[in-house]
Amino acid sequence: MAPVEEAATVRYADAAGLPDALRGADVLFVWDFLSTAVPDAWPAADRLQWLHIASAGVDPVMFPGLRDSDVTLTNSRGVFDNPIAEYVLGLIIAFAKDFAGSLDLQRAGTWRHRETERVGGKRALIVGTGPIGRTIARMLTAAGLSVAGVGRRARDGDPDFGTVHASDDLAEHIDWADYVVAIAPLTEKTKGMFDRRMFGAMKRAARFINVGRGELVVTEDLVDALRAGELAGAALDVFETEPLPGESPLWTMDNVLLSPHMSGDVVGWKDTLVEVFVGNFQKWLAGERLDNVVDKELGYVPMGAGPPYQEDRK
Amino acid sequence: MAPVEEAATVRYADAAGLPDALRGADVLFVWDFLSTAVPDAWPAADRLQWLHIASAGVDPVMFPGLRDSDVTLTNSRGVFDNPIAEYVLGLIIAFAKDFAGSLDLQRAGTWRHRETERVGGKRALIVGTGPIGRTIARMLTAAGLSVAGVGRRARDGDPDFGTVHASDDLAEHIDWADYVVAIAPLTEKTKGMFDRRMFGAMKRAARFINVGRGELVVTEDLVDALRAGELAGAALDVFETEPLPGESPLWTMDNVLLSPHMSGDVVGWKDTLVEVFVGNFQKWLAGERLDNVVDKELGYVPMGAGPPYQEDRK
Repeated sequence: MAPVEEAATVRYADAAGLPDALRGADVLFVWDFLSTAVPDAWPAADRLQWLHIASAGVDPVMFPGLRDSDVTLTNSRGVFDNPIAEYVLGLIIAFAKDFAGSLDLQRAGTWRHRETERVGGKRALIVGTGPIGRTIARMLTAAGLSVAGVGRRARDGDPDFGTVHASDDLAEHIDWADYVVAIAPLTEKTKGMFDRRMFGAMKRAARFINVGRGELVVTEDLVDALRAGELAGAALDVFETEPLPGESPLWTMDNVLLSPHMSGDVVGWKDTLVEVFVGNFQKWLAGERLDNVVDKELGYVPMGAGPPYQEDRK
Repeated sequence: MAPVEEAATVRYADAAGLPDALRGADVLFVWDFLSTAVPDAWPAADRLQWLHIASAGVDPVMFPGLRDSDVTLTNSRGVFDNPIAEYVLGLIIAFAKDFAGSLDLQRAGTWRHRETERVGGKRALIVGTGPIGRTIARMLTAAGLSVAGVGRRARDGDPDFGTVHASDDLAEHIDWADYVVAIAPLTEKTKGMFDRRMFGAMKRAARFINVGRGELVVTEDLVDALRAGELAGAALDVFETEPLPGESPLWTMDNVLLSPHMSGDVVGWKDTLVEVFVGNFQKWLAGERLDNVVDKELGYVPMGAGPPYQEDRK
């Protein structure tokens, strides 16, 4: 944060201290993106111009006070693309090769050969056509899967997805997929989109992977559908309530793989998130157009808003 | 096997019945490739012209009686390429994202966020430059890893590996790798090549993956090296003794992933193996050159012997 501290007065605050810190501030950098501190402290935002959030999803700050204000909202688009894409590919291979079964058998000291599935030739439907969804599409394609996307508007000839179906028509197309990957932004429109009807329309051999937001899913419907065998498995990195409550049936269900909201969090991610803010802060100081400006009506950065953050691969 | 049964007298035999069945036979199709029945029954092979084995590795039939005979040996090269390549990529992602840790925590009902590693940009050294090793190289490259190969002769500009190091020089190059993948054929030259010295030369953060043959590894040295922290983990699909004995320390070691010799065995693999034999049998009947003829001096099918079996991806 040194470049920011040299150019501006910087106050660091926790939730309790946010109202005092926010008073008189031009810029707010929201680090703990799951906190509800921002809407609670909003009345103190008396001269805020810009809010930057250390996440790709902006749903935690899409409260009416911010949405209806003139405050510019930017996110950390790009930071999580490759880490999450690798994670999703790994989950697909883990299902196909039954890595969980092998580990359970190893822990039990049991040698039991099973047949595995191919990954090549399988079909993945990626619900969400932002930078993370696109990176997932490219990585799965490289591994030999066929992909299609689901976004706001249906279209053909997309460079990453080929075919994109309209999310309104998802129930008609979902049975095409062996793997359904949820990476849509959480908005009023997408909340609860994976419900009883949607799971019932999936192929019984298909698996559901959620690396987006827990609230995209009606968790109870997912549990029921898994119990009824309407789909073959689920891998969940995000949940309606985080941490996942101890009484959730998901913890002990067969064919369910859980992880604690970590799919994008590679070693160094915190430094990268700070770099993204600092880069944008320097643009703000210079009066330049900011990167990753969120369309507050849509709830995400629209296509054509410039490239997302690109890591410098070594 | 119908096309074979129409054209020839076919005898099916288990180990006990093999000597009787082999007497007078022109062709032997070895299905249970780990059986020692063939060397035991060899004196009965009074007119054998051709032996085909339902595996990629031919080490189980490389006994002197066959090696010194005029019997043509063919293998099932190609069948396992893509399944094993997917498996290896999955293991690498499983290490990078700590899937085993997530499953152990899930089984314990514990929510614990950890940071993960990238896969892109990491380095994989693939020891074995046959069709399986090449398919692994292509798949890892597509997933963003850098690869190099290890084969009999050093060379540059290989289409799949770029650089290939000579296996005699492996100890000098092994510290380049984040992942070392063993898929070499088992021969007198490769047996035990992964020993104390080789593990000691690896990066401490590196992992070792064996999808070749257990005997490529001095298991005791691997156990010692893992205990000493000379490498960070191992994923083993093959073992010096299979099934892996219950008393092996590998079962319960941290950072060790075990599976029961199944990396290549996708649903339908048995049908595919029969197809490969039947296709070669039809060539034999027609007096054509057989596919996948093993160089019995080398112990594998040399480069330039024609393309391996290619699946018809759907």
